[in-house]
Amino acid sequence: MKIDLRSDTVTKPTKAMLDYMIQANVGDDVFREDETVNLLEERIANMFGKDKALFFPSGTMANQTAVKLHTKPGDQIISDKYAHIYNYESGGVAFNSGVSCKLLNGNRGMFTAKQVDEAINPSDYWYAPTSMVAIENTTNKGGGACWDYDELLKIKDICLNNNLGIHLDGARLWNALVAKKETTQQYGEIFDTISVCLSKGLGCPVGSVLVGNETIMQNALRLRKVFGGNMRQVGYLAAAGIYAIENNMDRLAEDHKKAKDIGGVLSKLSCIKKVEPVETNIVIFELNDDVNENEFVQKLANKNIHIISMGGHKLRVVTHLDYTNNMHEKFLRLLNKIDFTKH
Amino acid sequence: MKIDLRSDTVTKPTKAMLDYMIQANVGDDVFREDETVNLLEERIANMFGKDKALFFPSGTMANQTAVKLHTKPGDQIISDKYAHIYNYESGGVAFNSGVSCKLLNGNRGMFTAKQVDEAINPSDYWYAPTSMVAIENTTNKGGGACWDYDELLKIKDICLNNNLGIHLDGARLWNALVAKKETTQQYGEIFDTISVCLSKGLGCPVGSVLVGNETIMQNALRLRKVFGGNMRQVGYLAAAGIYAIENNMDRLAEDHKKAKDIGGVLSKLSCIKKVEPVETNIVIFELNDDVNENEFVQKLANKNIHIISMGGHKLRVVTHLDYTNNMHEKFLRLLNKIDFTKH
Amino acid sequence: MKIDLRSDTVTKPTKAMLDYMIQANVGDDVFREDETVNLLEERIANMFGKDKALFFPSGTMANQTAVKLHTKPGDQIISDKYAHIYNYESGGVAFNSGVSCKLLNGNRGMFTAKQVDEAINPSDYWYAPTSMVAIENTTNKGGGACWDYDELLKIKDICLNNNLGIHLDGARLWNALVAKKETTQQYGEIFDTISVCLSKGLGCPVGSVLVGNETIMQNALRLRKVFGGNMRQVGYLAAAGIYAIENNMDRLAEDHKKAKDIGGVLSKLSCIKKVEPVETNIVIFELNDDVNENEFVQKLANKNIHIISMGGHKLRVVTHLDYTNNMHEKFLRLLNKIDFTKH
Amino acid sequence: MKIDLRSDTVTKPTKAMLDYMIQANVGDDVFREDETVNLLEERIANMFGKDKALFFPSGTMANQTAVKLHTKPGDQIISDKYAHIYNYESGGVAFNSGVSCKLLNGNRGMFTAKQVDEAINPSDYWYAPTSMVAIENTTNKGGGACWDYDELLKIKDICLNNNLGIHLDGARLWNALVAKKETTQQYGEIFDTISVCLSKGLGCPVGSVLVGNETIMQNALRLRKVFGGNMRQVGYLAAAGIYAIENNMDRLAEDHKKAKDIGGVLSKLSCIKKVEPVETNIVIFELNDDVNENEFVQKLANKNIHIISMGGHKLRVVTHLDYTNNMHEKFLRLLNKIDFTKH
Repeated sequence: MKIDLRSDTVTKPTKAMLDYMIQANVGDDVFREDETVNLLEERIANMFGKDKALFFPSGTMANQTAVKLHTKPGDQIISDKYAHIYNYESGGVAFNSGVSCKLLNGNRGMFTAKQVDEAINPSDYWYAPTSMVAIENTTNKGGGACWDYDELLKIKDICLNNNLGIHLDGARLWNALVAKKETTQQYGEIFDTISVCLSKGLGCPVGSVLVGNETIMQNALRLRKVFGGNMRQVGYLAAAGIYAIENNMDRLAEDHKKAKDIGGVLSKLSCIKKVEPVETNIVIFELNDDVNENEFVQKLANKNIHIISMGGHKLRVVTHLDYTNNMHEKFLRLLNKIDFTKH
Repeated sequence: MKIDLRSDTVTKPTKAMLDYMIQANVGDDVFREDETVNLLEERIANMFGKDKALFFPSGTMANQTAVKLHTKPGDQIISDKYAHIYNYESGGVAFNSGVSCKLLNGNRGMFTAKQVDEAINPSDYWYAPTSMVAIENTTNKGGGACWDYDELLKIKDICLNNNLGIHLDGARLWNALVAKKETTQQYGEIFDTISVCLSKGLGCPVGSVLVGNETIMQNALRLRKVFGGNMRQVGYLAAAGIYAIENNMDRLAEDHKKAKDIGGVLSKLSCIKKVEPVETNIVIFELNDDVNENEFVQKLANKNIHIISMGGHKLRVVTHLDYTNNMHEKFLRLLNKIDFTKH
Repeated sequence: MKIDLRSDTVTKPTKAMLDYMIQANVGDDVFREDETVNLLEERIANMFGKDKALFFPSGTMANQTAVKLHTKPGDQIISDKYAHIYNYESGGVAFNSGVSCKLLNGNRGMFTAKQVDEAINPSDYWYAPTSMVAIENTTNKGGGACWDYDELLKIKDICLNNNLGIHLDGARLWNALVAKKETTQQYGEIFDTISVCLSKGLGCPVGSVLVGNETIMQNALRLRKVFGGNMRQVGYLAAAGIYAIENNMDRLAEDHKKAKDIGGVLSKLSCIKKVEPVETNIVIFELNDDVNENEFVQKLANKNIHIISMGGHKLRVVTHLDYTNNMHEKFLRLLNKIDFTKH
Repeated sequence: MKIDLRSDTVTKPTKAMLDYMIQANVGDDVFREDETVNLLEERIANMFGKDKALFFPSGTMANQTAVKLHTKPGDQIISDKYAHIYNYESGGVAFNSGVSCKLLNGNRGMFTAKQVDEAINPSDYWYAPTSMVAIENTTNKGGGACWDYDELLKIKDICLNNNLGIHLDGARLWNALVAKKETTQQYGEIFDTISVCLSKGLGCPVGSVLVGNETIMQNALRLRKVFGGNMRQVGYLAAAGIYAIENNMDRLAEDHKKAKDIGGVLSKLSCIKKVEPVETNIVIFELNDDVNENEFVQKLANKNIHIISMGGHKLRVVTHLDYTNNMHEKFLRLLNKIDFTKH
C-alpha cells in the first residue's frame, strides 16, 4: 500500500467521477461550443457572484493570466515572499507579463494591510508602478494557513484607495472555506479575480478556473489563447469539475481532521523541532538541526510513505481524497515506530 | 442531421476511444508520473526517430514552445505569409518569444529554398537576427497542400549552412503522410522540432505533441510550465492519442477522398470562381465577385451545413472522422440543388 | 577629400553649432531640470501643435517608445514592408513591445488607405489585435519618397473609425516638409505621435524628439527610463537641436537639388538599370544585372567616395549638410568618368 | 548660492572639460566610426583588463544590457533588496529581460557569500533558474558603503561553482576604489561585466560604460541598438569621459572628506536618530520619530540647501565636484543653527 502525501494533486478520479466524465456533452471549446465547459464556467461564476469564469489547464495559467489582466509590462505586484506565483511558477510573472514582485515578509504566507500600504511604490517614474496585490488562501508554503477575513477587507480598502487590482490565488480556497465556514460570495466581494483549482482537494484530474467581472475578464480568453491553453473537447475535464463541486467539497473536513491528527503525532516526536499550526490539509514541520532531512524522507519512503521537502529543513505532508482511513492509521502508527534519529 | 465542415477540430471521441481513455493508468504528470502520458510521448518520439516528445494542451502551445526553444528575444523567424503561427496564434510569437516574422510570399503556404536563402537577414546589428525557419505541412490557409519533400531537403541544407533551426508545424502532418505516402522518420530527419496534433484528423478531444532531440528539447518542460501547460492526471487525454495513432491514421484517406469529391462538385458550380487543388481533407474555394460570401454560408447553414470563411471571398470546407458517408451524400446533393446566386 | 554619401547621419556640427552648444544652460534632465532640453521640447511640441515633446538619444528609441505607447503585448501594427521600425531597429517592436507587424506591399514605402483597411485583423481572439498604423515620411528604403497628404488624411479616417493609433516615423520629415511645402501643424493634425530626428539633415550630432498630446505621452518619460534613455546634463545636445531648427531647415532644399543632379547623371549611365524618382535627399538606383554591386561600390571607394548597398542590387546615395558644392562637382564628374562595367 | 546635495548627478562640466569636449574628433558611432568613443572604450576596457567596453547614454541602460547579456527570460538574478537595478530602474529587469529578482536582506546593500549560496534556486523546472548575481559598489541606498573585497572573492567562487554570471553595478565604483585604495584590475578579475558611470562623481554631463570580455559582450552592441542607445557623433560626450578619468578621479577623496564632516555634524544633532557610517560621498541619516521629514527638508530648502528623502524617515546628502569649500562651510554652519524640531 503506497501512501502518497507529497501533495493533494496526486489524487485520481473515482469510478463515479470517471463515469460522470465520459457522459459529458462536449464540443469544440475553441469555438466556445462545449456545453459542459460552459456549464462549469457558469456555475463557478455564479458561486462567486461574478460575471465570468474561464476554465484553464492549470492553476499556473489561471494565475499568470490574472497577473497579465491586472498589469502592464514594468509594473510591480505585491505578494508574500511565500507566494506560489513568485516561487513555483518558473519565473512566470516576469516571463509572461514583464512584472516584478515586491515581496512582503508575512507570517506563514499572510501579510497585513499595513504592510501593503507601505509597499506601494511612489509615483516617480524611476519606480516600477505598483498595480496589484496577490493573496494566496490557503497558503501553500505557509502550511495551509487561512487568512483572516477582516484583514482581507482592510487590504481591499487599500487597493481601492490606491487603484490596485486584487487577485486571489485560491488553489486551495475550498479548504479555507470549509475550515473557516466562509462562502465563495464573501471572496467574490473582495477580489477582482480569483483562481480556483479543481485538481487538488476536489480530486479532479486536471483544471483550474479563473473568475471575475466582465471588465477585467474581457481579455482573458485571448490571453489563454496566447499561452496555448485553449483546448477542444475539454468538457470531459470540466465534467469532473462539476462532479467535484457537487460531491467532494464537504468531505475536505475529513482531510483537515487527518492533517490535525498527523500534526499532533509529529509534535510529540523528539526529532522534530516544530510543527506549524495545522488549519487545513497541509502539515509543515521542521526537523531538529541534527536530523538529516533526506534520511528522514528516505526512512518513510522505505515504508512506501512519501512526503516532500520544502527546503530549509522543513518537510510537508498533505492529506487528500486518496489518503484513506487505513492509510491514516498505518501512517500514524509508523510515525511512532520509526527511529528517525539513528543513522 | 447537423453537418459540421468548419474544421476537423469538431470531432468527438467515439465510444471505443472513450472506453480506452477511462481505463488509462494515470498519475501526476507535473511529477512526470503519468504512465500513459509517458507512453504516448515515447511512442511519438520513436515514430519520428527523436529523443524526446512532450504532450501539450494545444498545438498553439506546442508551436509557441518550439519558437521559444529556437530563438531569443529580438530574433526573426522565416515563415509563409499563410503560416498558422503568424496568423492564428493571437500574436503569440511576439508576445511569448519577442520575435518577428519575415513572411514569404509562397504558393498555397509553401515556399522555396531560394526564397528562404534570400530572406536571411545580414548580420549587421541593426537587423533582427534570423534564427529559424517554420514550415507548415499540410498548409491550413493554403488549403491542405502538401510540401514537396525534395524542396524540404533543400531548405534543410540552407538551415544547416546558416545555423538556422527548422520547425515543422505538423498540425495536419498525418494527412500529408497519408496523402504522399511519406513517413514520420523522413520528417524526423529534416526537422529539429515537430509539433503534431491529436485533435484534428485523428479525432482526439485534446492534445498536441512536440518532438525533438535532447539538446533542443531540454528546456521544453520548463517552458510548458511557464505557459501554464503542465497538467496533472492528463493520461486520459494521452490515452486518446494512443488509441488514435493505432486506429485513426489510415482512415484519413477516406477524408481525402470525400474532400476531392466535394472539390469536384464545387468546381462545376457556376457561382464559384476557383477551387484550389484538393490534396488532403481541406477544400478552399473562391466565390465569384458577385456572390455574397455571407449569404452563401447562410444558405448552407439554413440546411444545417456549416462551413467557414477564410477572408478575401474564400471559403473553407474540412472533412473529418465525424463527417459520415450519409452526410457526404446529402452535402453533395444539396450543393447541386441550392441556388447560391439568388438573393 | 573624402566624400561620404552613405547617409545624412554622418554630418558633424559646424563651428557655429558647437559654439551654440557649449553655451547651453544645462541641468539634470532626470530631474527634468535641464532648461535647454525643456526649451527644445517646448519648441518642437509647439511646432506640431501638440501638448508634449520628449528628447531621445536616438530615433530608434523614439519610435520604439511610440510603438509601446500605442500597443500592448500581442497587438499588431500595420506598416510598409520597407518600414524602418520593421527592418532596421533590430527586431525592436517584438523585443520591446511584444508586437508583430502586418507588412503592406506599398509603393516606395507608401501604402494606401484601402490597403490599411484590408489589413485590419478581425476581432476573433485568435488574431493579433490591430492597434496602430505606422507611417514613415520620407521613406528611407523607399528612396526619400514623400507621402501624398490627402492619402494620409484618408488613412487617418480609417484609424479613427477603427480605434487605431497612428504614428509617424518622421526621421526625415523635415525633408518632406521642405520638398512638399507642407507644415508641421498639418502633420500634428493627423498623427497621434511623431518622431523627428535632429541628427540627419539638420546636422546635429545626436538626438530625436517624440511629440504627442498629454494622453498618449503621459507614459513616455517612464518608458524612456526603462529603455535607459534618460540622460543628465544633455542640454548640450538639445542646444544643437535648437540651433538646427533655426538655421538648417531651409537649406535642405540644396540637398534635394544636389540629389536630383546626381539622379540625373546616374540615369544616363549605361550600367544602371533604373534610378528611382528623386524627391528629396536620397537617390536609390538599381544596377544592371551584369554589374557587380560590390565592385561598383569599391570603384567609388577607390576615389574616396562612399555609398552603401540596400540589398537586392540597389545602391543608395544620400546628400547632406557636409556634402559641399566642391564635392558635388567632383562626384558628378567622376560618375561620368569611371568605367563601372570593366572588371 | 544654491547648495545642491541631492545627488552627485547634478554636476555640470567645468570650462576645461567643455573645452576638451568640443575639440573631440567625432564620427558616426552607429557605424562605429567615432574615434573619441572608440578611444574612451579602449581606455576603460584596458583599465579593467577586459576585452571590450561600450559607451551608454545612461547607467540604467548599461545595467539593463548586462542583465540581458547574462540571462534569458524567466531566469532569476540575486541582488540586495537595496539594489538600484531592482528599485530605481522602473521595473526594467522584468520589462526588458523578463527576469525576476531574489532579494537578499543585506547589510547596507551588501550581502555575504553564504546568503548567495542559500538563494540559488533548486533545478526543478517550477523554479526560476538562477543565472546571475548583481553587486552594487558603492551601494547607493546603502549610503555609499564599500564592499569587502574578500567577500567578493568568495561570492565569485560561488558563482563559478554554480555557473552564475556576476555583474557589478559600479555607478560609484570610482568612489570605492579611492576610499579603499583598490584597483580597477582587481574588479576586472572578479566580475564578468561592470558598468561604471561618468556623470556622477567624475562630473561628466552624460554617460556610462559597460565592460566585459568578448564572449559576454558580443551581443551588447545589438542590445544597445534594440533599446535605442546607439547615438551618432557622441564623441563629445565620450571626450568628457576621457577628461574626467584623467583629471577628476583622485579628487573624489575631497568629496569623501566633506561627507565625513557632514556626517560628524549630523550625528551631534539632537533631532537625528542615527547617521549611517560615512565611507564615501553619501551620507544617509535617520530622523527622530517626532521630527517631520518634509519639514526638515523644507527648512534646508528655505536656505537654498537641497537634499532628498530615501523613504522610511531617512534622508540623503551627496557631496560632489560642484559642492565647493564655501558651500561646505556654509552648510555645516547652518546645520548647527537651524532649529529642526520647531514646527
